[in-house]
Amino acid sequence: MLLNNTAHFLAMDVAYEEADVIVFGAPFDGTTSYRPGTRFAANGMRNESDGIETYSPLLDLDIATSCIRDVGDLEFPRGNTVKILAEIKKVTQKILTDQKKPLMLGGEHLVTLPVIEAIVETYPDVNLLQLDAHTDLRDTYLGETLSHATVIRRCWDLLGDGRIFQFGIRSGTKTEFGFSLVENHTYLERFAVTTFKDILHQLVGKDVYVTIDLDVLDPALFPGTGTPEPGGLTYRELETIFLALKEANINLVGADIVELSPHYDHSNVSTIVACKVLRELSLLMAHK
Amino acid sequence: MLLNNTAHFLAMDVAYEEADVIVFGAPFDGTTSYRPGTRFAANGMRNESDGIETYSPLLDLDIATSCIRDVGDLEFPRGNTVKILAEIKKVTQKILTDQKKPLMLGGEHLVTLPVIEAIVETYPDVNLLQLDAHTDLRDTYLGETLSHATVIRRCWDLLGDGRIFQFGIRSGTKTEFGFSLVENHTYLERFAVTTFKDILHQLVGKDVYVTIDLDVLDPALFPGTGTPEPGGLTYRELETIFLALKEANINLVGADIVELSPHYDHSNVSTIVACKVLRELSLLMAHK
Amino acid sequence: MLLNNTAHFLAMDVAYEEADVIVFGAPFDGTTSYRPGTRFAANGMRNESDGIETYSPLLDLDIATSCIRDVGDLEFPRGNTVKILAEIKKVTQKILTDQKKPLMLGGEHLVTLPVIEAIVETYPDVNLLQLDAHTDLRDTYLGETLSHATVIRRCWDLLGDGRIFQFGIRSGTKTEFGFSLVENHTYLERFAVTTFKDILHQLVGKDVYVTIDLDVLDPALFPGTGTPEPGGLTYRELETIFLALKEANINLVGADIVELSPHYDHSNVSTIVACKVLRELSLLMAHK
Amino acid sequence: MLLNNTAHFLAMDVAYEEADVIVFGAPFDGTTSYRPGTRFAANGMRNESDGIETYSPLLDLDIATSCIRDVGDLEFPRGNTVKILAEIKKVTQKILTDQKKPLMLGGEHLVTLPVIEAIVETYPDVNLLQLDAHTDLRDTYLGETLSHATVIRRCWDLLGDGRIFQFGIRSGTKTEFGFSLVENHTYLERFAVTTFKDILHQLVGKDVYVTIDLDVLDPALFPGTGTPEPGGLTYRELETIFLALKEANINLVGADIVELSPHYDHSNVSTIVACKVLRELSLLMAHK
Amino acid sequence: MLLNNTAHFLAMDVAYEEADVIVFGAPFDGTTSYRPGTRFAANGMRNESDGIETYSPLLDLDIATSCIRDVGDLEFPRGNTVKILAEIKKVTQKILTDQKKPLMLGGEHLVTLPVIEAIVETYPDVNLLQLDAHTDLRDTYLGETLSHATVIRRCWDLLGDGRIFQFGIRSGTKTEFGFSLVENHTYLERFAVTTFKDILHQLVGKDVYVTIDLDVLDPALFPGTGTPEPGGLTYRELETIFLALKEANINLVGADIVELSPHYDHSNVSTIVACKVLRELSLLMAHK
Amino acid sequence: MLLNNTAHFLAMDVAYEEADVIVFGAPFDGTTSYRPGTRFAANGMRNESDGIETYSPLLDLDIATSCIRDVGDLEFPRGNTVKILAEIKKVTQKILTDQKKPLMLGGEHLVTLPVIEAIVETYPDVNLLQLDAHTDLRDTYLGETLSHATVIRRCWDLLGDGRIFQFGIRSGTKTEFGFSLVENHTYLERFAVTTFKDILHQLVGKDVYVTIDLDVLDPALFPGTGTPEPGGLTYRELETIFLALKEANINLVGADIVELSPHYDHSNVSTIVACKVLRELSLLMAHK
Repeated sequence: MLLNNTAHFLAMDVAYEEADVIVFGAPFDGTTSYRPGTRFAANGMRNESDGIETYSPLLDLDIATSCIRDVGDLEFPRGNTVKILAEIKKVTQKILTDQKKPLMLGGEHLVTLPVIEAIVETYPDVNLLQLDAHTDLRDTYLGETLSHATVIRRCWDLLGDGRIFQFGIRSGTKTEFGFSLVENHTYLERFAVTTFKDILHQLVGKDVYVTIDLDVLDPALFPGTGTPEPGGLTYRELETIFLALKEANINLVGADIVELSPHYDHSNVSTIVACKVLRELSLLMAHK
Repeated sequence: MLLNNTAHFLAMDVAYEEADVIVFGAPFDGTTSYRPGTRFAANGMRNESDGIETYSPLLDLDIATSCIRDVGDLEFPRGNTVKILAEIKKVTQKILTDQKKPLMLGGEHLVTLPVIEAIVETYPDVNLLQLDAHTDLRDTYLGETLSHATVIRRCWDLLGDGRIFQFGIRSGTKTEFGFSLVENHTYLERFAVTTFKDILHQLVGKDVYVTIDLDVLDPALFPGTGTPEPGGLTYRELETIFLALKEANINLVGADIVELSPHYDHSNVSTIVACKVLRELSLLMAHK
Repeated sequence: MLLNNTAHFLAMDVAYEEADVIVFGAPFDGTTSYRPGTRFAANGMRNESDGIETYSPLLDLDIATSCIRDVGDLEFPRGNTVKILAEIKKVTQKILTDQKKPLMLGGEHLVTLPVIEAIVETYPDVNLLQLDAHTDLRDTYLGETLSHATVIRRCWDLLGDGRIFQFGIRSGTKTEFGFSLVENHTYLERFAVTTFKDILHQLVGKDVYVTIDLDVLDPALFPGTGTPEPGGLTYRELETIFLALKEANINLVGADIVELSPHYDHSNVSTIVACKVLRELSLLMAHK
Repeated sequence: MLLNNTAHFLAMDVAYEEADVIVFGAPFDGTTSYRPGTRFAANGMRNESDGIETYSPLLDLDIATSCIRDVGDLEFPRGNTVKILAEIKKVTQKILTDQKKPLMLGGEHLVTLPVIEAIVETYPDVNLLQLDAHTDLRDTYLGETLSHATVIRRCWDLLGDGRIFQFGIRSGTKTEFGFSLVENHTYLERFAVTTFKDILHQLVGKDVYVTIDLDVLDPALFPGTGTPEPGGLTYRELETIFLALKEANINLVGADIVELSPHYDHSNVSTIVACKVLRELSLLMAHK
Repeated sequence: MLLNNTAHFLAMDVAYEEADVIVFGAPFDGTTSYRPGTRFAANGMRNESDGIETYSPLLDLDIATSCIRDVGDLEFPRGNTVKILAEIKKVTQKILTDQKKPLMLGGEHLVTLPVIEAIVETYPDVNLLQLDAHTDLRDTYLGETLSHATVIRRCWDLLGDGRIFQFGIRSGTKTEFGFSLVENHTYLERFAVTTFKDILHQLVGKDVYVTIDLDVLDPALFPGTGTPEPGGLTYRELETIFLALKEANINLVGADIVELSPHYDHSNVSTIVACKVLRELSLLMAHK
Repeated sequence: MLLNNTAHFLAMDVAYEEADVIVFGAPFDGTTSYRPGTRFAANGMRNESDGIETYSPLLDLDIATSCIRDVGDLEFPRGNTVKILAEIKKVTQKILTDQKKPLMLGGEHLVTLPVIEAIVETYPDVNLLQLDAHTDLRDTYLGETLSHATVIRRCWDLLGDGRIFQFGIRSGTKTEFGFSLVENHTYLERFAVTTFKDILHQLVGKDVYVTIDLDVLDPALFPGTGTPEPGGLTYRELETIFLALKEANINLVGADIVELSPHYDHSNVSTIVACKVLRELSLLMAHK
C-alpha cells in the first residue's frame, strides 16, 4: 500500500507487510474557521524530516531499528467533507484489519472522527486522550455538526461519558467548559498536563488512543497553526507526556497529530517540532 | 443592509439606498486545490485601502463623489459548498431587485457561479468577460462538478456558446484549450489581452458581466494568489482594459474580483493591486 | 462617541452610554528610536480578534456579558508630538468625565503620559503599576524630554516618589537603574514579577493604573515589538498578574497596553497575545 | 568628516578631501503616513552593497576609479521634525561650501526640502527633476505643512513656476493634479517617463537637481516602500533616464534617493535595486 | 537508476529505460559568495510542481505523453568541491552512455562545469548557450579557480573561442566584459536576448547545450536567487527563447537550470517559475 | 588590526592596543548540512547591536567602561575549507601573542577547531566547555572528517579524555551518545545545564574555553539557526550560566558564539539574543 507520489518521512521505509505502525497523511482542512493550510502538514513534515536524527535520546529508541512505514497522503476531492471522512475511515479500517497501528497526520482536527469510528469497531472500549488548547466540544459550529470545533463532541457521541480525557485546554465557550467541569461528561484539565500521569495509572491494561492537537503547545514554540492560543505547553512538558506513555502499562492502539499549518510557520520551527513529536510517538507505538 | 462587523473600503460609505454599486465580500475558499486563503481577501483589502487615494487619474473619477457602498462580508458556515453558494445567490438577487449593480469580492473563483445564476434571471442575454490565467473549463475536478477549476464550464452550462470571452489564459489541460480553440464553445485569447477592445466593439449595446481572476496578472506583481502562473499581464495592460471599458458603449451589469490570497502576499503589494482594481472597476460601474 | 471607520474588537459593541470600560486606540509612534510601527497595533488587534473566544476560562468572565465598548482609533497629524499628546489627554478626560474607565491601546509608550495627566486630575493619589522590559526612566533621550524612553520619568515628575511600581525590568542604563535601586524614587523588580502580588497588598483600597508594555514578555512569545529584550516573562507569568489583580481589593481606574508592532509579527502570534491581554484586562476593569 | 559608526557603501571610500560626490544618509521618517521604516534605508543599502559590482556596464563607469565618498548617516533626535530638517540643511551647506556635490539617501521624501533650501543658496536658478509615483503637491496634509505629502509643494514655494518637472506620477488628489495639469505650476507627466529626454534638452546648460522617490518603480520590482502604487516604471525604463542624464549637457548639482523601507523588503530585492540606482546616479554625478 | 528518497517532479515518472530525458538534481552551493541555499532548489521544485499543469499551451506538448524521468538528487559530502564535481561528471557520463539527454537542476552555477566536461567527451563540437545576468568569466574569484563566478571561463578553457554564446548579461567586472566584447573570446549580448534567434540560425545542424542561470530573469519575477540583478528578462522574453528553440534545427544534447535559492523565495513565485522553465525545457529536449 | 569595511559592535571601539578582549567574525558555513547562512551572523549582530544597551543589569558591567574591541570579519575564499581554517588559526595566534583574549563570532561550529588548535599552543591544559543541542562527536560526516558535525570529536583528538564538558545536548546518533555516556570520553549532560555550576567548581584555577552553539537555546527563542532542535534552554537558564561564570574562580582564556543564521531569523529576535549573549560573554572575559 503506497498512497501516492511522495517521499517518506525520515527512515520510515520498511515494507508495509513488516511494519507495526503505519503513518499516513490526511490533508483535509475544509472546516477550518480561521486560518487554513493544515492540508500541507504531512508533506511539510516529510520535507523537513532530514533536519532531525532517527535516534531519540529521550526514549533511547531509533526509527532505523523500528518497524514503521510512512505510506504517504490520502488524495481527496476538495469541498466534500462527507466523502473525505469516509476515505479516512476506510484506510484506517484496512490498517486495523492488517493488525497494524494507525498513526495519522492531519489535517485539521475533524479528521480524528473517522479514525475513532474505525477504532471503536476494533476496540469498543477504547479511551481517548486529547492534548489540545481547545475543548472542541461544541454541539454545532456555524450551523454545522461536522467541524474542527465539534470533533470531540462527536467522539463523545460515540464513546459516551468517562472515556475522554482532555489536557492543556485553555479556550472554549462557557458552555463547553461546563460540559466537562460541571456536567462531567469528560475529564478536563485546564491549562496544564500535571494530571496526565495519574490518569494513565487509571487506564492500566486498557486500550488507549492519543490525539495531539499541536496547538496545545505554546505559540512561542508553535506559531504554525490555525488558532494559536497563548499560555500553552513547553516542549519539555510534552516530553513528560512521552515518558509517561513509555512507562505506562496501557495498550496504545492508535494516534494522530493534527493542526500543523506550515504556511504560518515562517521559520520552520513548528514543522520541526511536529517532526520530533511524530518520531517520539511512532517510536512509542512501535515498541509498546 | 450592513452585513457584519467590518470597516468599509476607503470612502465607500454612502447609504445603501442611495448607492448604485454595492460591494460585498464572499469569503469562500472551500474547493481551492492548491493554496487556500482567499477567504481573507475582502477584509484584507478594506484594511489596506487607506494606502490609495479615492481619485483615479486614469479614469478622472473619484470614489468620494460616486455612489458606491461596501456592505461588508457574507458570513458562511465552513465546509458546506452548496449552502454557501445559495447565500451568495440570494444576496445578489436582493441587490438586483433593488436595481443596483453587484460587485463581489471573492473568495475563490467558484463564487462567480451563483452571481451569474442571479444575473441571468435579470439579464438573460448577459455576456461574460473573463480575465484569468486559467481556463476553468474542466467538466469535473477531483470528482466534483462544483470547483474553482470548473466554474466557467458551469457558467457555460447556463449561457451556452458565443457568450463567454476569455482573456490572458495561459494554463489548462489540452482538453480545456480544445473546448475553446477547437470546438469554439467560448472565445479564448491565449497569453494576452490584445483583442479585448475588439470584442467590446462586438458587444455594443449589450449586457456585460466582468469577472477578474487576479491571477491573470503576472506573479511578479501579484504573488498573493493560490495558483500563480508566470507570463501574465502587467498592471499597465490591465489599465488598457479599464480604458476600453470606459470608452465602450456597453451595459456593465455586474462584476467580481476573485482569488486574492492575502497570506501569500508578504509585502502587501498584491492587496494594494487588488484595492486599485476595485477602485477602477467600481468607478466604471458607478459612472456607466 | 465613535472615532472613525473601523471594526470594533471582538464583542466590544455595547452602546457608549451603557459601557463601563472604553477601549480606544492611540496610533502614535513618532519617537520610536529603533523599529517603528506601533501605530498599526490597535487595528491589527481588531482584525485578529476573531481568533480568540469572548469567554476567559482563567477569570470565568465573558466579554459578551460585560459592558465594554471599543470606540476605535484617534486620528492624528503625523510628526507633531505635542498636538498628538494633547488629543489623547482630551479623549481621556472625556471618558473620565463620563464616569467610565479608559483602556488605551498604543502606540508607543509615550502615549501613557497624557493619560496619566488626565487620570491625576480625577484621581490625584493614583498609583502606577508598570510591566515593562525597560525602565523608561531617562531624563532626556536623543536630546528630547518627551520620548518612549523617558515616559515613566515624566510620570514620576507628576506622581513623585513611592507611587510608581515597576516589574519585569531588564534593560536600561546604569543611571536609570540607580534612580530606582539606589535612590529609591520608584519600586523596581528586576527580571521577574514575583513581588507583584505583595505590592498589590500594600495598595489595598487605593486607586491604581496599570500600564503594560508588552515587551515585558519574552521575545520568544512576543517578537512583534520595537525593542525586544531576551529574558522576559512567559504568558503564564502574566496570568499570575491577572489573577492577582482579580483578587486584589484595589480600585483599577484605567489601563493601557502599548508597544505591539504588528509589522514585525510575521506569524501573528504577538497580535493574538495582545488580544488575549486586552480581553483579560478589560474584563478585570469591567468587573471590579 | 565621518558621521558615525557605519560601514561605507561598496567602494565609496576615497578621502573626503578628494571626493567630488559626498553620499550621506538622512534616516528620518517622522511624517510617514502609512508604513514607516525608511530610516533604515541607507544602512540597509550599505549592508547589501556587496551584492553588486563596482562597474556599471550601462554607463561604462566604475566606482573603484571615481571620487565618491560615503560619510555615513546623520544622527537625529526622534520626534522633532524642525530640528532634523535643520541638521540636514547644515550638512548640505557644508558639502556645497567644500565645493562638492551632495547625494542624500533618505529617509522619507520630506528630507528633500532642506537640501533644496541649501541648494538654492548656491544655485539660485536650479531646476528640480522629480521621479515619483505621487505628486507630493498637497498644501497641507493631516493639518501639517511639513510632510512627505507636501514636500514638492514646499519646494515650489521656494522655486516657483516652471522650475519643477515631475515624471512617472500616478497618484494624488484631483486638486493636486489640477495644480500641475490645469494651473501649470509644474510640468507633470502622468504614468510614464517618455518626455524626460525632451525636458532635459530644454535644460541644456542649466543647474539640475534630481530627486528619485523609488516608489516611481512598479511595486513588482520595488515592494519595499511605504506607499507602493501599481502601474510604475520597470527598471529598464529607469535605465533610459540614466542614459539620458549621461548624454545631456546639464549641470547636475545634487541628488537624492528616498523612500526605500527595508523592513517591507522581505526578499531584499528593493534594497538591491536602490543600491544599483545609487551606483548609477553617483557615477553620473562624479563624471559630469 | 533512482538516486534517493524523494518524490519526482510532476509526471516525470516513466521508467529510466524508456526515458529520453533524465532530470537529476545537483544540490551544491559550496562556492556561493553572497546568499547560499541553491542546494534546496531541486526538491523545492518537486514539492511545488503540483501547482502547474503537465500540458504546455506555448509548445503544445505534454509531460504526460513524453518520455521524461526525474531520478532525484545526487547525495554529496559537504565542503569538498572536487569530489562533488566528480560525482556530477560521473552521473552525466552514465546518462550519456545510456544514450539519453541529461537535464540537471542546480545548485549553483559551478555544477555546469562537470556536465560540460562529460558532454564534450560525447559531443566534442558542442556549443554552449548561456542565459545569465552575470558573465561568470573571471579567471579566479577570491583566490579560487573553481567558483560560480569562474564557471563559464572554465568552460571556455574546454571549448575555446567561438563556441560560447551569452545572453541577458548585465553584471561583471570591466575585465570580464572586455574578455567578450573587446577580445571576442565569446559572443555576448548585454541586457537582452534579441539576438538569440539569429545565433540559433548560425548553429543549424550543430550540437547545442543550454545553461539557464535563472537570475537572467528580472528580480521582480525571480527574487529567489543568490545575487539578484535588476534589469533582467520578463517571463515573456524567456518564452521567445523557448519558441526559438522549438523552431530551430539544432541538436539539443543537454541542459541545466541553476541558481534557484528557495529560502529567499518567500512567496514561492520563483520556484513556480523554475518549475515552468523545467517543464518547457524538458518538453523541448524530449521532442527534438 | 582592523579586518575590513564594517561597523563595529555597539561600543566595542577601544584601540586594539588597549583592548583585553578581541572580537572577530569568522563567516564560514561551508560544511553546513541543512540550512546554510551563518556566514552572515557577525555582521547581522553588528547591525542590530544598537537595539540593546551597553550596560548589563545581570552582571552590573558596562561595555562603555570595558576594554573590548571588535575588529570585524575575516575575509575568506569560498569553497576551500582547509585554507579558511588556517586563516582563523593565524588570527587567533596573533591575538594570543598580543596577550589578548579571542572571542570569535561564527560561522558554523567547525570554526571552533582552528581556535582550539591555537589555544592549546598557549594553554596546553585548557578545558573546553560546550553549550550545544548536538553532540558534534561524529568521527566522520558524509565522508568528511572536517565538519560542523565532527568538530568536538576533532577537539577531543587534540584534548583527549576528561577535558571536554558538554551541556544541553539533546540530539545525536546512539553512537555519539555512547562515546560520552558509555565510554566516558567527555562529560555530557543531556537536555539541561543543571550541573554546569558543579563542573565549574571542579575547574577552579584552570584554563577554560567556552563554545556556545546558540542552538542550545530552544527554537521558540532562537529559530535563526541551521538545525533547530526542540526542547532547549530558555534565556533565563542561559543567565544562570553567565552568573556561574562570573562567580567561578577560573581563567577564561577564550570563547566563541556560533551557528546564528540571520536569514532564518525573520523577526530578528535570534540576532538580538545573540547580541545579548555577546555582551554578557565579552563583559565576563574583560572583567575576569
